[in-house]
Amino acid sequence: MSHIMKLQCLYASSLNSADVLYLAGLQVPDPYLSIVFGRHKIAIVNQLEYGRVQRDSKYTKVFELEALKQTILEAEPELKSKFKLAHFIHYFFKLYRADSIVVPKSFPAFLLIQLQALDLPISVIETSFFPLRETKNTEELNYIRQANRASAHGFERVHAVLKASKIHFGRLYYEGAVLTSERMRRMIELCLMEKGAVAQSTIVAGGLQACDPHQIGHGPLRANELIIVDIFPRLAESGYYGDMTRTFLKGQASPAQRALVQIVRKAQKAAVAKIKAGVSADSIHKSVCECFDQAGYQTGKREDSSVFEGFIHSTGHGLGLDVHEAPRVGGSKNRLRCHQVITIEPGLYYSELGGCRIEDVYAVTEKGADKLSQYNYRWEIA
Amino acid sequence: MSHIMKLQCLYASSLNSADVLYLAGLQVPDPYLSIVFGRHKIAIVNQLEYGRVQRDSKYTKVFELEALKQTILEAEPELKSKFKLAHFIHYFFKLYRADSIVVPKSFPAFLLIQLQALDLPISVIETSFFPLRETKNTEELNYIRQANRASAHGFERVHAVLKASKIHFGRLYYEGAVLTSERMRRMIELCLMEKGAVAQSTIVAGGLQACDPHQIGHGPLRANELIIVDIFPRLAESGYYGDMTRTFLKGQASPAQRALVQIVRKAQKAAVAKIKAGVSADSIHKSVCECFDQAGYQTGKREDSSVFEGFIHSTGHGLGLDVHEAPRVGGSKNRLRCHQVITIEPGLYYSELGGCRIEDVYAVTEKGADKLSQYNYRWEIA
Repeated sequence: MSHIMKLQCLYASSLNSADVLYLAGLQVPDPYLSIVFGRHKIAIVNQLEYGRVQRDSKYTKVFELEALKQTILEAEPELKSKFKLAHFIHYFFKLYRADSIVVPKSFPAFLLIQLQALDLPISVIETSFFPLRETKNTEELNYIRQANRASAHGFERVHAVLKASKIHFGRLYYEGAVLTSERMRRMIELCLMEKGAVAQSTIVAGGLQACDPHQIGHGPLRANELIIVDIFPRLAESGYYGDMTRTFLKGQASPAQRALVQIVRKAQKAAVAKIKAGVSADSIHKSVCECFDQAGYQTGKREDSSVFEGFIHSTGHGLGLDVHEAPRVGGSKNRLRCHQVITIEPGLYYSELGGCRIEDVYAVTEKGADKLSQYNYRWEIA
Repeated sequence: MSHIMKLQCLYASSLNSADVLYLAGLQVPDPYLSIVFGRHKIAIVNQLEYGRVQRDSKYTKVFELEALKQTILEAEPELKSKFKLAHFIHYFFKLYRADSIVVPKSFPAFLLIQLQALDLPISVIETSFFPLRETKNTEELNYIRQANRASAHGFERVHAVLKASKIHFGRLYYEGAVLTSERMRRMIELCLMEKGAVAQSTIVAGGLQACDPHQIGHGPLRANELIIVDIFPRLAESGYYGDMTRTFLKGQASPAQRALVQIVRKAQKAAVAKIKAGVSADSIHKSVCECFDQAGYQTGKREDSSVFEGFIHSTGHGLGLDVHEAPRVGGSKNRLRCHQVITIEPGLYYSELGGCRIEDVYAVTEKGADKLSQYNYRWEIA
């Protein structure tokens, strides 16, 4: 009951805030005010956006900023010389007789300070602002599948290019020219675009570069090295993300590289087998850690350097309108719920061996997991 | 002198904050703390980012988050049970004996509240956080030119496709299939990618759709209608934007459409002629308004509807690591300075006629303007 008395406020563009995109259901490129009170979903936009947002969005009521400002000033002419954005929020706070204002973690400082100056009761929500976003409906699941089909299309291209590549003095050559991370990235991103998906920072990182999980990769790709390819495209129209990783090798893998890939895939299977509504997400992460520990793959800072090696990230994350969203898989106490969508992406990184990561996407169900990403696990390409 | 005593703090990813990208000089996809004090430029990142940021960024000092936390806790063990992100900022505040903390407009609410709880003196900078970002050096100007060359490459494609298109019952057909906004957008965005630039929400909007400047356009394109094409790609590597608009028409323009395009181009020329260091940006905007007024093109709300028509946006905006950044051109009192980069993009929108916008990019110089965008103004395609 008390929840209903809270005025939820956001100030962001749909490009920078998945919460705003979720609420609006359409792209609004510049920051604007959204206010939610129970079933009322309000947008306050400038004249440039007014017609389109009124017509095409999911808001229940859209106001043109200048017109609403005039309405407020007519009722409260004393505000005229000092009117600020926060007064719009104050207006709805009084109109609905709300008892408090809640804002997301990322709510901008300038507006928070304006609200504080008006002496309004504000709290910052540190968890999911719209918890409903975590559990996906059928349409959302289909979008995520579709985005992962784009990723898979990218992997098909990677496989074909590596297959057709020649090895010359340890470097890969494709269609007569050196095959670089940059070139492969561009080929992948063109594939994605054909599927209506946009990707930036697609990772194509070989050898030592792959040991740095946010290194997107640059320069010539080499034979007999593990190459991590992480493709996380966003559907241009709906804004939903896919996120898949495969690790490839062109040439001949060493026994140690084979063992590394095998244990990562084994850890992924162990993690997936544990997915089920009600299970703690951290227990899934722990199953991956145990799998690596038992096989003797250690994690930590190297004694001879400041570099962290082993399993240096968490097992996964929620996926939807954000590429990283709730729930986390690892490091927190949450229990999985039905229709949450998570990635499972164990990885191991050692400077001598290179890196390996394998990532797929799953929807949590009552009984287990529905796989939302389809692509094979062939990785060694002669 | 007093400025030197301010501790500048940011908490954002380089993807969401152009200020962070400017400071870091490399992409860091998750939010993290940056602290600037005089010539000290500090990043506090997790172990995943540590090696890469330390090696490749422009920071003068990079800390691994957990290690720095341990250092702080050793000195102040009483923090152990209540350590928060704000304590990192507090640590540097004391270390440098700063007298205040400044944060950007977009600084996240959760961290501002943590800082307030520590009773630290904070102010939010409502203007440019790094004013240097507004004035571009030679390298930055070259990036913007390069991004605009990608845009121009897109316009070449649009021209070629419209040229080759056939008209059938008023609709455009290209290579045997209906030419839609979506299809044209995809062809443009593929062209951009070939030039190392990524675009989202490229506008291809014909007829009435073009009257809504943030409507990206959908469905079949029609003959004899004005088609606004606004291409604002971002260079994948450096993060700099281009931003150009041309208005096309396939078929035969009416005298009223021709007059509309002519007056918009005339207004653009009038605006460009006024660009010079020291000139007020608003006077440039006013020259566009006057040009339209004198020719009888009115701006305002239609009496018979709630739609705004005429010149319904400002003349331009700064361009760089953000597609919209300081300075504004219209609606504020700023004077232009050397090496600022601005767009000049007058437009007129009337539901009977359609919309027309023409946009180019200029660097402000002592004597005038350097054009950073090159593409012709041919628009009527038989």
